[in-house]
Amino acid sequence: MSYARQLLDTYPRSFDVDAGVLAATIDAVNDCAQACTSCADDDLSEPDVAEMVKCIRLCLDCTDICTATGAVISRLAEYDPGTTRPLLEACVAVCKSCGDECERHGHYEHCRVCEQACRRCERACRDLLDALK
Amino acid sequence: MSYARQLLDTYPRSFDVDAGVLAATIDAVNDCAQACTSCADDDLSEPDVAEMVKCIRLCLDCTDICTATGAVISRLAEYDPGTTRPLLEACVAVCKSCGDECERHGHYEHCRVCEQACRRCERACRDLLDALK
Amino acid sequence: MSYARQLLDTYPRSFDVDAGVLAATIDAVNDCAQACTSCADDDLSEPDVAEMVKCIRLCLDCTDICTATGAVISRLAEYDPGTTRPLLEACVAVCKSCGDECERHGHYEHCRVCEQACRRCERACRDLLDALK
Amino acid sequence: MSYARQLLDTYPRSFDVDAGVLAATIDAVNDCAQACTSCADDDLSEPDVAEMVKCIRLCLDCTDICTATGAVISRLAEYDPGTTRPLLEACVAVCKSCGDECERHGHYEHCRVCEQACRRCERACRDLLDALK
Repeated sequence: MSYARQLLDTYPRSFDVDAGVLAATIDAVNDCAQACTSCADDDLSEPDVAEMVKCIRLCLDCTDICTATGAVISRLAEYDPGTTRPLLEACVAVCKSCGDECERHGHYEHCRVCEQACRRCERACRDLLDALK
Repeated sequence: MSYARQLLDTYPRSFDVDAGVLAATIDAVNDCAQACTSCADDDLSEPDVAEMVKCIRLCLDCTDICTATGAVISRLAEYDPGTTRPLLEACVAVCKSCGDECERHGHYEHCRVCEQACRRCERACRDLLDALK
Repeated sequence: MSYARQLLDTYPRSFDVDAGVLAATIDAVNDCAQACTSCADDDLSEPDVAEMVKCIRLCLDCTDICTATGAVISRLAEYDPGTTRPLLEACVAVCKSCGDECERHGHYEHCRVCEQACRRCERACRDLLDALK
Repeated sequence: MSYARQLLDTYPRSFDVDAGVLAATIDAVNDCAQACTSCADDDLSEPDVAEMVKCIRLCLDCTDICTATGAVISRLAEYDPGTTRPLLEACVAVCKSCGDECERHGHYEHCRVCEQACRRCERACRDLLDALK
């Protein structure tokens, strides 16, 4: 069981969203942040780095947005939909863009791994947006 | 002149948004991230910390979102409105909430300073959203 | 298998450190960053929040240092011991302090979970320091 | 006056280090984080991006370490030299490496600007290390 789930299960207050959906999203954004940090560095090591510039940029954006999203959704009380919803929407959008770009470079195994992390994160953020409705 | 502005003026590619508006927003989100980090720590040092819990949480969220926003809007090329717009909207929302909460604690000078940083950041993000239309 | 390990296994260049040790450290610092973000928020929800101030501060420091450490050790090439060694030492130190403080609050289950994450991260960073010798 | 200085001047507790030195360091690490984020993106836009890979990596490391350092030194109370000293040493080291690499690319104006930010940050972190003795 991930630390995110263990810590939701020990939370001192009640909260409104399903703990399983929330923990899955926290884990997915953290995994995606890590995958994108690594993929950006892998891209920088490829011989055709000039072809990878868009992928690097999207990976860097994706890491930054996933990291912020993971922190904000981990702070359960004082939940503010005016902030959390657009943040999750930004996370969905950057994961979609980054996953699509990694798919274009699917001849690189690191891009295939990163694409999986982005697709899973995109789905998890959509699921959380649905659960928060 | 801030580093943000100097670096925009030396950017190797052209970009579509006014450099002055963009640099002002970058500076405002970075300043706001710093003010909120400090204000959260100040709140933790107050004798009535239990009254400051909401303020601390909002300051932490505000720092995380401002930091991500500053990084993403600093990466000019490959601008993706599907990502940048909701991220700026999340930043506007959290700055509004955090500024309002700091205003409630205006008897603390650090909350007054942090409120100013949040209000300025909110305005700057709105201006950039308008400029990106 | 974690994304960190999968991405190390697909890295385009060779690198000098054992992939298993490095991947375990990346996973441990990311898990610890998440545990500390959640624990700080849990602390803020406890009725005796004034007693938890030191724990909150250490959790916030621990998250920030673990996040930076995870990113830096994920960028394998251009490894610079002058930077990586003191950064890992800072990570060891903050995990030790944060784990000790969480142990003091072991009547809170979230502090027990966070202590485990800190101890595991401290060990992993020490192992990586040894492996980098 | 920067927000960092204003917020130090309103801090509810006493602290042991000179407020001017501390505020100058907070401002320098935040400015350096921003300069390195921009410089990495500028590097990615240059026609000879393959020559800029080391510079990009060092800029990314420098941003991550400066951001963590700025947050940790902004949390004044519970100051823990076992953590803060090696973190500042890591910051000095990465600023030195990044500044040196940017100097090598001084034909690019963005690298000259970033080098200045790195040198200033390196000096500020050394000054704070001295002041904390």
